[in-house]
Amino acid sequence: MYKLGQLSQAIAAHLVGDPNAEVERASPFDAAGEHDVTFAAIPAYVENLDQSRATAVIVKQAQPGACTNLLVAANPKLAFARAVLLLHDRARSPRGVSPDLTIGEGTSLGTDLSIFPRVTIGRNSKIGNRVTLYPGVTIGDGCHIGDDTILYPNVSVYDNSMIGSRVIIHSGAVIGSDGFSFVPDEQGRQVKLLHLGWVIIEDDCEVGANCSIDRGGFGATVLRRGAKLDNLIQVGHNCEVGEDTVIAALAGFSGGTRVGRNCVVAGQVGTNQHTSIGDGSVITGQAGVTKSVKPGAIIGGMSQDYSQWRKSHAIFKRLPEIAVRLRRIERMMGLGGRGPGGVQ
Amino acid sequence: MYKLGQLSQAIAAHLVGDPNAEVERASPFDAAGEHDVTFAAIPAYVENLDQSRATAVIVKQAQPGACTNLLVAANPKLAFARAVLLLHDRARSPRGVSPDLTIGEGTSLGTDLSIFPRVTIGRNSKIGNRVTLYPGVTIGDGCHIGDDTILYPNVSVYDNSMIGSRVIIHSGAVIGSDGFSFVPDEQGRQVKLLHLGWVIIEDDCEVGANCSIDRGGFGATVLRRGAKLDNLIQVGHNCEVGEDTVIAALAGFSGGTRVGRNCVVAGQVGTNQHTSIGDGSVITGQAGVTKSVKPGAIIGGMSQDYSQWRKSHAIFKRLPEIAVRLRRIERMMGLGGRGPGGVQ
Amino acid sequence: MYKLGQLSQAIAAHLVGDPNAEVERASPFDAAGEHDVTFAAIPAYVENLDQSRATAVIVKQAQPGACTNLLVAANPKLAFARAVLLLHDRARSPRGVSPDLTIGEGTSLGTDLSIFPRVTIGRNSKIGNRVTLYPGVTIGDGCHIGDDTILYPNVSVYDNSMIGSRVIIHSGAVIGSDGFSFVPDEQGRQVKLLHLGWVIIEDDCEVGANCSIDRGGFGATVLRRGAKLDNLIQVGHNCEVGEDTVIAALAGFSGGTRVGRNCVVAGQVGTNQHTSIGDGSVITGQAGVTKSVKPGAIIGGMSQDYSQWRKSHAIFKRLPEIAVRLRRIERMMGLGGRGPGGVQ
Repeated sequence: MYKLGQLSQAIAAHLVGDPNAEVERASPFDAAGEHDVTFAAIPAYVENLDQSRATAVIVKQAQPGACTNLLVAANPKLAFARAVLLLHDRARSPRGVSPDLTIGEGTSLGTDLSIFPRVTIGRNSKIGNRVTLYPGVTIGDGCHIGDDTILYPNVSVYDNSMIGSRVIIHSGAVIGSDGFSFVPDEQGRQVKLLHLGWVIIEDDCEVGANCSIDRGGFGATVLRRGAKLDNLIQVGHNCEVGEDTVIAALAGFSGGTRVGRNCVVAGQVGTNQHTSIGDGSVITGQAGVTKSVKPGAIIGGMSQDYSQWRKSHAIFKRLPEIAVRLRRIERMMGLGGRGPGGVQ
Repeated sequence: MYKLGQLSQAIAAHLVGDPNAEVERASPFDAAGEHDVTFAAIPAYVENLDQSRATAVIVKQAQPGACTNLLVAANPKLAFARAVLLLHDRARSPRGVSPDLTIGEGTSLGTDLSIFPRVTIGRNSKIGNRVTLYPGVTIGDGCHIGDDTILYPNVSVYDNSMIGSRVIIHSGAVIGSDGFSFVPDEQGRQVKLLHLGWVIIEDDCEVGANCSIDRGGFGATVLRRGAKLDNLIQVGHNCEVGEDTVIAALAGFSGGTRVGRNCVVAGQVGTNQHTSIGDGSVITGQAGVTKSVKPGAIIGGMSQDYSQWRKSHAIFKRLPEIAVRLRRIERMMGLGGRGPGGVQ
Repeated sequence: MYKLGQLSQAIAAHLVGDPNAEVERASPFDAAGEHDVTFAAIPAYVENLDQSRATAVIVKQAQPGACTNLLVAANPKLAFARAVLLLHDRARSPRGVSPDLTIGEGTSLGTDLSIFPRVTIGRNSKIGNRVTLYPGVTIGDGCHIGDDTILYPNVSVYDNSMIGSRVIIHSGAVIGSDGFSFVPDEQGRQVKLLHLGWVIIEDDCEVGANCSIDRGGFGATVLRRGAKLDNLIQVGHNCEVGEDTVIAALAGFSGGTRVGRNCVVAGQVGTNQHTSIGDGSVITGQAGVTKSVKPGAIIGGMSQDYSQWRKSHAIFKRLPEIAVRLRRIERMMGLGGRGPGGVQ
């Protein structure tokens, strides 16, 4: 239970209402009831504040005469995210280390661990404090796992991976697989360019389910502090993803791609090798990054400025009409030639 | 062995031939021989019925004078699928429960199970009858696995997942990982919006290898009865996939996407958040669904009607020619200006 | 340590310099120092050869007066790949077979194995010599794993998979999952077409992390000798990938796709069912292969010749301007009608 007075301070919101009212959980607007805090995410909710039975509603602006407690925040979604964390992010009580842990020589374990059964750790690795390793997690030799990091079931970590503190890696993710580099020989047979590097995942990163992050060829593939990856993302060898950049599912980064900080990369985006994406850029869904992107740019289609892409695409949808109009003009001018698209 | 009289009834086909002839397996047309049933999938096979050495051939229309037994079905592919199931879907004899099963408090197990070694089940979960759990399967706390469901090796199921009966989940699939929701704070640092929901997979669903299905933020992400997912598919938080909808590999659904029933979603399709795809729609390969789709629609490109998209794309391929023709007209009219695409 | 005389012979390069100088490792150009061999990958490095502190630099052409040892090779990248293998591909000393191996009846094991803990092998399988199986690897019944093959952690191999020698399969990959084939019945319910086939992975193939390779419906899905797959790739039932073909991440091949030998398929490419891609073709990033591709072709966009696609795309980017110019002509000719794209 949190009193609204406490909660409003903790989430940096201004309370308009009863500081002694109590909330114990966060709920969606439609379902919120007594002791719930919720969030008027869309205008329709703001207009229907009076129908909410929530004990408190987070809003952007005070609504005079509202008949519920309001928590006014400049960024209501942020305030709500903080409220959810406060009310629901239970401190994990450590479960201890399963007696069936398989562990190699020279590996050290921190304290207050939660290591589930069927975990395997190689040699000369270092596991920090309060780390959680779920069943099926396999960690190679020479790895480092920072404090408070969580590896969900069946995560595979190859040798020499460096994973920071408070990192979350979801099931099935693969950290440190070989980069993809082959050179055809004189007979066309593919010769493997051995990759000798490693992966660095800095503090506070999150890696989604079934992502694969390849090791560097030489040196490291790096996720900088706070980078967040959705599921099924490919990060090629020697890529670098900047701080607090968020990347949606099924995006793929070719070897050597550099993504700046605070970028947003949407789903199914792909990049060419060695391209660079400037800080604060947005790459929209299914776009292709074939050349480097300036800081703050918004990209759509195949490396186009997004607003230009939208204009081009609007005309693309009308291309059959354009072709007809062109043919009409040609006819009037007595010009021959094939018309496109069967509109002759 | 099935007699053709029996088989024809079981697969709802009309037999033209010997009801006492016997078949024991299904085969492709080219390879079928004695005691085989096959299917004339393409016209070339129908024309070469007489060259088949199969004991029976499933066809759409009776062929007078055919020198093999014919099974005439309105939907030959469906009849063949049923024949394959009849002849080849051996009832699994339960293997029992491996003595090395790791199981949490309060979890109950059904009867006639096949639980292979190296399976881990958490607390307060419920495993139905005749369930098969292959090695490396990890099931969290508070889960429910329905009767006759099969989880292939290294499937990861997070806490509170509800999985129905006769569900098949292929290797590496992840059920119930966190949804992808972050809110940048005042310094641009990404704050995690905790996801408190769960996943529901109803009866008769199939989930392909290395799919990831995120839990809901609040409430559930749902696959409705009979939904079928190919491999490497991303289903975001709070999505709903309708009954008997089929989805091909590498498709990705952003949070809150609703896909209707009996839809066909092709490979590498992506959707925007909170879009809705009506019942019976078809989304063609690599299309982007940026806005909601009406029931029965066929979509191509970036949210276009597919037949319109095809027409636009046909002109797209001729754009260089269009540009030249436009420039010619401008020249004849004495108009200046740069021509596009270097055709000045 | 290798003397340059030895090394130059082994990598088929011509030495300009001291045959007795010694190298012990490969390094990137910027970081290379004493006892390092490196590779002038880009012109800027060739121009700055004199600033390199490497003991030897691999180059395409002899540089008169260079103050370091040069290894001149027609294909410097190939020579470098060979040098890296020579200097860094340490022979693995076998670790033996973990005592906790779970193994079914009738399965045979070769010699000099490295089988880590928590590996499961089914019945009637055959494991060759010097095979490495990392933790969490699960191999079904009736499989064959050739000599010197490596399966990284949490790889899942279904029944009856045939895997050749010197194959590398990265973590999370799934070999032999069911193909995706369903037929709606009279009520629209999806009936599964059982897949009875298997997977063949020939010698010297590499399969990336979290790939999924489905079994054939009847017969086999095949990766031919030396095919190399990056991460997160979908290979549908009955596909065939030709010798020495390389495929980048997140590509997806629908059932029955045939890819020739020595092809290059870029990231996020998708193919339609039963298409065929000729030998030596290149499919560029995010392209869709909707119809068969001739040998040696280069494809972009939706099944276009790549150079044609580039020209079309160049005009696509200027479509708003094209629309304006068309409208201007219509106005001058006194033609009415709506103009496209709001340019009326």
